Amino acid sequence: MSRKRRKHILTDKEIIMRLEGLGKLVVDRIMKEERPYLEIPLRTLSNTIWNEKKGMLMLGPKKSIRSFFDINESKKFMQTLLMLSLIIMARRENDYPTIRDLYYTGKHTLEYIDHTGKKRREETWNSQDESNTIIQDIEVATGILREQMGIMHDMKGKIVGNMIIRSKGHRIDLTKLGYGAYSIPPDPDRIEIEKIFGDYVLVIEKDAIFQRLNLEEFWRKQNCILITGKGQPDRSTRRLVRRLWEEYGLPIYVLTDCDSYGFYIYSVYKSGSISLSYESIRLATPGARFLGLTVSDIKDYKIPRNFIIKATDNDIKRAKELLRYPWFKSKAWIKEIKLFLKRKEKVEIEALSGHGFKFLSHTYIPEKIEKKKWIV
Amino acid sequence: MSRKRRKHILTDKEIIMRLEGLGKLVVDRIMKEERPYLEIPLRTLSNTIWNEKKGMLMLGPKKSIRSFFDINESKKFMQTLLMLSLIIMARRENDYPTIRDLYYTGKHTLEYIDHTGKKRREETWNSQDESNTIIQDIEVATGILREQMGIMHDMKGKIVGNMIIRSKGHRIDLTKLGYGAYSIPPDPDRIEIEKIFGDYVLVIEKDAIFQRLNLEEFWRKQNCILITGKGQPDRSTRRLVRRLWEEYGLPIYVLTDCDSYGFYIYSVYKSGSISLSYESIRLATPGARFLGLTVSDIKDYKIPRNFIIKATDNDIKRAKELLRYPWFKSKAWIKEIKLFLKRKEKVEIEALSGHGFKFLSHTYIPEKIEKKKWIV
Repeated sequence: MSRKRRKHILTDKEIIMRLEGLGKLVVDRIMKEERPYLEIPLRTLSNTIWNEKKGMLMLGPKKSIRSFFDINESKKFMQTLLMLSLIIMARRENDYPTIRDLYYTGKHTLEYIDHTGKKRREETWNSQDESNTIIQDIEVATGILREQMGIMHDMKGKIVGNMIIRSKGHRIDLTKLGYGAYSIPPDPDRIEIEKIFGDYVLVIEKDAIFQRLNLEEFWRKQNCILITGKGQPDRSTRRLVRRLWEEYGLPIYVLTDCDSYGFYIYSVYKSGSISLSYESIRLATPGARFLGLTVSDIKDYKIPRNFIIKATDNDIKRAKELLRYPWFKSKAWIKEIKLFLKRKEKVEIEALSGHGFKFLSHTYIPEKIEKKKWIV
Repeated sequence: MSRKRRKHILTDKEIIMRLEGLGKLVVDRIMKEERPYLEIPLRTLSNTIWNEKKGMLMLGPKKSIRSFFDINESKKFMQTLLMLSLIIMARRENDYPTIRDLYYTGKHTLEYIDHTGKKRREETWNSQDESNTIIQDIEVATGILREQMGIMHDMKGKIVGNMIIRSKGHRIDLTKLGYGAYSIPPDPDRIEIEKIFGDYVLVIEKDAIFQRLNLEEFWRKQNCILITGKGQPDRSTRRLVRRLWEEYGLPIYVLTDCDSYGFYIYSVYKSGSISLSYESIRLATPGARFLGLTVSDIKDYKIPRNFIIKATDNDIKRAKELLRYPWFKSKAWIKEIKLFLKRKEKVEIEALSGHGFKFLSHTYIPEKIEKKKWIV
């Protein structure tokens, strides 16, 4: 399968220029003797919009003005410029700080004398939550993902299968990793996809299932690519899945347990999460299909009664929430979630092993794909 | 650096034979019209012994007799044979079930009529805890790790740096993975180490720090190998670290936060954990050295006061426990833990970024290694 299209990937130089651009706006205002401020798109729930046409959660048009001379905003204004300067410094020096490094590097105490003559102390930020929020603000203000800014974080994703990539000039054949896999790098945009000879991507919730299918060389037998995000996926895993769908038009199948948590993981791959709605446009894969397990599978695949787990109150609560999400409004999903709420039962993917160790890889997955029994 | 020695690695055939051997003992007893039983080394705390000479936690000599005709033991006896047969079946068929697959495959309901004529039902096992325990029993009884039996579980470990391996016949150069890394496979014994040209192994607690050092190509500049276990390491990561130390005599340096949790992670790499003491002999690395952060580093490396975090009650409790462990009885460790208990302060590794993003990789790590400022 040849590449369909690839958007221009920003170079380091362009990323630095865009970051500097944000700072330059402030400087320009000061030079013109105007009051300095920053314009930051709002990342609130009220500014999170379901884009029906695109099939994803997106940020609305609302913006906040972060003004230096507004006493309620001045601290945040200064925090933003501080963080921006740290990130630019790191990029110029080719450093790759973690989000926590940035917190510490920027953390210091300002001492000042207030208008009553009293000595006061103020921390640049008190917790990492505070500095992380500022990084997100810079992401939305510049339109650059923190991964592209070279900011590091915990990485969980793995990939293996019928695909060859290039990274830092090295050719990496993902069919030749033996018993291991390739751990997805922080910024998957820096990966060059040289060749894809898989027909589809199977996204697997559970790492142990991924390991098992890898050792069986499922990707070779079924001509596909395997990815796991180990539960709730991180941003880099979602970005790579998105690229495989967007640039190569590969079908994306998501395999999870049959429970609200599994359904939710699928929806994060597909439509994005509320807290990261501002990144859906780069992270979501609206074309993703849910392969299972579905609630109907319990009957269809004759899952023994004693393999079924009672849903917890939390499962039920979460399922009711899902029913309200616009991206669970398809006939198939409403049926499944209502069935889940009615039966109050969940099943793990491993329950299929009741039909033998090979049932998942030899029957369930190929059959569901061949007979188009996924749901969207 | 050339390989010093490598113990014989069991082939699939030998593993099947050893597993069958355990079952054969039972069959032989039945054929001789003796009462069938299994002998299983005890994995209790009372049978966990600190081996001073080897520097690791090990299982003592106590064994339990699991007899079919003992009403208190017969269920466990049957569970053990059931699990044993599932594992042998999987190995014969070249399947790689997860621990959860084994739970489901073996789970079924036995119906029987008791001595009063009453119909009764009994589950083979009720929870995965129950079936996991049986897998551990089979590990100690046969002396084979579950990873060697081809049983899958969640995997967190990653490796990158100056080393070339072979896996399933593929040559994998760990310096040519670009922005990514190699995810450690479930059974690191199946990895063949072709060439090591690193001088030491740096084991990093935090994944984000691992990513950062990888992107900086720290392993190239410092001529080493990087491994992360992402917090509390899994068995496979520990096994690989052990192999690099045992077979190649590489110095192993462990880099964690300065808190009881970080100290404990180091001790798990080094001496094993109580719950897995029966595997220390294959998983522990008694030669591991703690590179930091130490409590003394707070002063020595001028960590600013506002970077310091107050230790929680749990940190204090854990530190007091560490003080009682025989493997924290060195002068250096007693000093550090007592200092921790006195100051009740902890520091994260990222706090070093207060001295600049490069401080950790350009100063702290090389300096500590060069000046032999690690502790054991």
